[in-house]
Amino acid sequence: MMDLKVEPADVGLIGLAVMGENLALNLESKGHRVAVFNRTTDKTEALVQGRGRNKNFIAAYTLMELAGFLDRPRRVILMVKAGQAVDFLIERLVSLLEPGDVIIDGGNSHFLDTNRRHAWVESRGLLFVGAGISGGEEGALKGPSIMPGGSAAAWQSVKPLLRSIAARAEDGSPCCQWIGPQGSGHFVKMIHNGIEYADMQLIAETYHLMSNLLGLSPETMRNTFRRWNEGPLKSYLIEITADILGHHDQTGRLVLDQILDASGQKGTGKWMVNSALDAGQPLSMISEAVFARFLSARKDLRIEGAQRLAGPGVTPLEDQAAWIKHLEQALFAAKVIAYAQGFSLLRAAAAEFGWPLNYREIALIWRAGCIIRSVLLERIAQAYGRNSDLSHLLFDPWFQEQIGLAQDSLRKVTSAAVINGLAVPGLGAALSYYDGLRTERMPHNLIQAQRDYFGAHQYERMDQPRGVFFHTDWLGDRK
Amino acid sequence: MMDLKVEPADVGLIGLAVMGENLALNLESKGHRVAVFNRTTDKTEALVQGRGRNKNFIAAYTLMELAGFLDRPRRVILMVKAGQAVDFLIERLVSLLEPGDVIIDGGNSHFLDTNRRHAWVESRGLLFVGAGISGGEEGALKGPSIMPGGSAAAWQSVKPLLRSIAARAEDGSPCCQWIGPQGSGHFVKMIHNGIEYADMQLIAETYHLMSNLLGLSPETMRNTFRRWNEGPLKSYLIEITADILGHHDQTGRLVLDQILDASGQKGTGKWMVNSALDAGQPLSMISEAVFARFLSARKDLRIEGAQRLAGPGVTPLEDQAAWIKHLEQALFAAKVIAYAQGFSLLRAAAAEFGWPLNYREIALIWRAGCIIRSVLLERIAQAYGRNSDLSHLLFDPWFQEQIGLAQDSLRKVTSAAVINGLAVPGLGAALSYYDGLRTERMPHNLIQAQRDYFGAHQYERMDQPRGVFFHTDWLGDRK
Repeated sequence: MMDLKVEPADVGLIGLAVMGENLALNLESKGHRVAVFNRTTDKTEALVQGRGRNKNFIAAYTLMELAGFLDRPRRVILMVKAGQAVDFLIERLVSLLEPGDVIIDGGNSHFLDTNRRHAWVESRGLLFVGAGISGGEEGALKGPSIMPGGSAAAWQSVKPLLRSIAARAEDGSPCCQWIGPQGSGHFVKMIHNGIEYADMQLIAETYHLMSNLLGLSPETMRNTFRRWNEGPLKSYLIEITADILGHHDQTGRLVLDQILDASGQKGTGKWMVNSALDAGQPLSMISEAVFARFLSARKDLRIEGAQRLAGPGVTPLEDQAAWIKHLEQALFAAKVIAYAQGFSLLRAAAAEFGWPLNYREIALIWRAGCIIRSVLLERIAQAYGRNSDLSHLLFDPWFQEQIGLAQDSLRKVTSAAVINGLAVPGLGAALSYYDGLRTERMPHNLIQAQRDYFGAHQYERMDQPRGVFFHTDWLGDRK
Repeated sequence: MMDLKVEPADVGLIGLAVMGENLALNLESKGHRVAVFNRTTDKTEALVQGRGRNKNFIAAYTLMELAGFLDRPRRVILMVKAGQAVDFLIERLVSLLEPGDVIIDGGNSHFLDTNRRHAWVESRGLLFVGAGISGGEEGALKGPSIMPGGSAAAWQSVKPLLRSIAARAEDGSPCCQWIGPQGSGHFVKMIHNGIEYADMQLIAETYHLMSNLLGLSPETMRNTFRRWNEGPLKSYLIEITADILGHHDQTGRLVLDQILDASGQKGTGKWMVNSALDAGQPLSMISEAVFARFLSARKDLRIEGAQRLAGPGVTPLEDQAAWIKHLEQALFAAKVIAYAQGFSLLRAAAAEFGWPLNYREIALIWRAGCIIRSVLLERIAQAYGRNSDLSHLLFDPWFQEQIGLAQDSLRKVTSAAVINGLAVPGLGAALSYYDGLRTERMPHNLIQAQRDYFGAHQYERMDQPRGVFFHTDWLGDRK
């Protein structure tokens, strides 16, 4: 047998579906030698013979081979479907790697799984990083936003690698920053995705009102979103909405008009609502966005509902220019509130898990590469820069002022939709939350009275400290 | 040693906290001899020496003793805190009981736990019933609504026992009917509790608007709720709301005004939202009710929010009589929508788990004994009597007509609240859901386009069958 000397690779990458392959190409393009492995060899072949031909890749056909190809300390990135496959691979890798080596899960794992895996891998002397990676296929290839968390000791080792492939904000800084311990990276990615759900829902509602309440043409809507993309709403999602509103097929028809209004999802919105329920945080906007997707998928029910259920006819609004301005302000206000809900959940998680999260840094690494990139994130970073322990994003002076100016438009738009029978679950939930947050005295004294009445659950009193409970014999005067 | 002959008991009851003790007293009052056991003996002593003195109880001080006291087949009701205690007791009981004996979990267990326990207990040759029991302390004592599910073979054995203690509807029928296999009884109880959350939230919002938007006095509010309790809103929760609005302390002050507006919860609302997310069902009203309780508990944040966040001043509405009528109609419409959401989730669970649920029977057993008892349930039973496979409660002719008449008031009330800065998350979510359900074309074509744009998630087309997916190269014309 010949003793083949192979130049060691800087990093191993497992899982060559679209995201994994693109991330591998991204790594290689930044000067890294990448050892790649896929469960089925055809994908490995496709990469090294195809898009990766004559590039600095080395194909591994077993995990043991992969381990042998890597420079020490080894760094192996998993880009496989969240779930059992991740556990299986981690178990195999732990038996093949050595203390000090780092396993990086770059998939969409649930943060509680990452908490568990992190503890287990560390107990075996290795290091584990759960890295949220956002930006879709294009981001993976050209520069995603990366949210790594887990073994702090791994950061120095993975930092140059991950930062080299991350997106860069306009100021040149890489969109990759250490998040914190355990599954905090995947938690932050989950928050990102939940905000993405809400943001998309709000834009969709705005489009719905533009079309149905103002009767705007696709061309006018396109121009409106383009104009908005030069102001405080400037963001990737607004930009692609304008693109979509201008995209025609070969026969000249708008592609958007031919797309079925039945939306799918991949579960991270649902995870976020579950986490909010666990953390006792009101996350109404992300919930409504998830529920709206559910309802959209039930086209059969909606066709029947449209026939059976009474409602007002739409009276198109006059003064389009003024209403377009109101829509812009309403969308801005609701978007800010969605971010505020997301950061409130982050804050609750930080408290619950003891994660020293840096909210400013988190906002900064979302500025480029990821789906929710927007100029608003710069403002959020500034708010947490002013006060790293801000109790609520809306209480920051800049946001307080801006939302104060925009809330009236959110009110006008929501009311117009309500009166005209157009569903705006996202905008409506934003306003309910905002008005709830500014309600010093909610009607939950009545709910507490009811609970005490039928279940003797007891209540606290206005004139007594929290935590002191009272019971009233409500039926006493009827006995 | 003497051979003590003890008259055998009809039923064993484990767990003598308030609910368990009251259920034991209820059982005994219906002519059953009840063997009771509690983990700590003081509660057992308290019952047999106190409220159960000279009654037909027999105190067991070990589980083995309890098993020995019971007539065959044995029936043991667990009334303990949901969670590990239930598993522990089931394990012990299975080792002490014999094939054909029945373990009945009457606590608030999660239906997935009941699915699991049911399978395990049956695998050991015994029978297991998961019975949702609703009605609070008073219901447990005087007659709760009971929702048993699990081993079908157990029904003939537990039917006389459970029916004897159940509430009775006005027509005399017991509010206890076999629900279906596995954890279906606890699932139905969970739906009950979720609807209860929504119902309470809607009443609270109505009270909030009565007080803040119409400026009604407690006395007028009380009279209004009393009057409503003679119409389509007639229900236990409306009745106790009127009671609460008339309940003064010894100094003449309204107790309600002294209760802190910070609401607690025991988790079943949260379970229901989790289940809705798993089942892909839009359950927005129960979610908003849960979230509103979360927000209510953050009084500190709301005090700061009230100071910092801008909003309109409230302009009290003229024409109180007309607005009270609108509020009644709005509350009715929203309540119907909350029930419709609940029954939609039931229907989804029936499909997912293969449970042959009888929605008519379920509505009927909620007519008395439980917290959500109301005249509306008679209407719901009639709707499912007309069509047992109704695809949506609102599509029943009676409901379709009623909601058609009431929806305009729901719109007017929601809009007035929105314009005046009063938070109505429940009413608003009801209307969003209703308008969504009657929207043949939702704006989710845009969301599908966005997802295809950034993630190549593909979309379905209006002019093609469902399940056929397409992708557009959105950047094609920019390259």
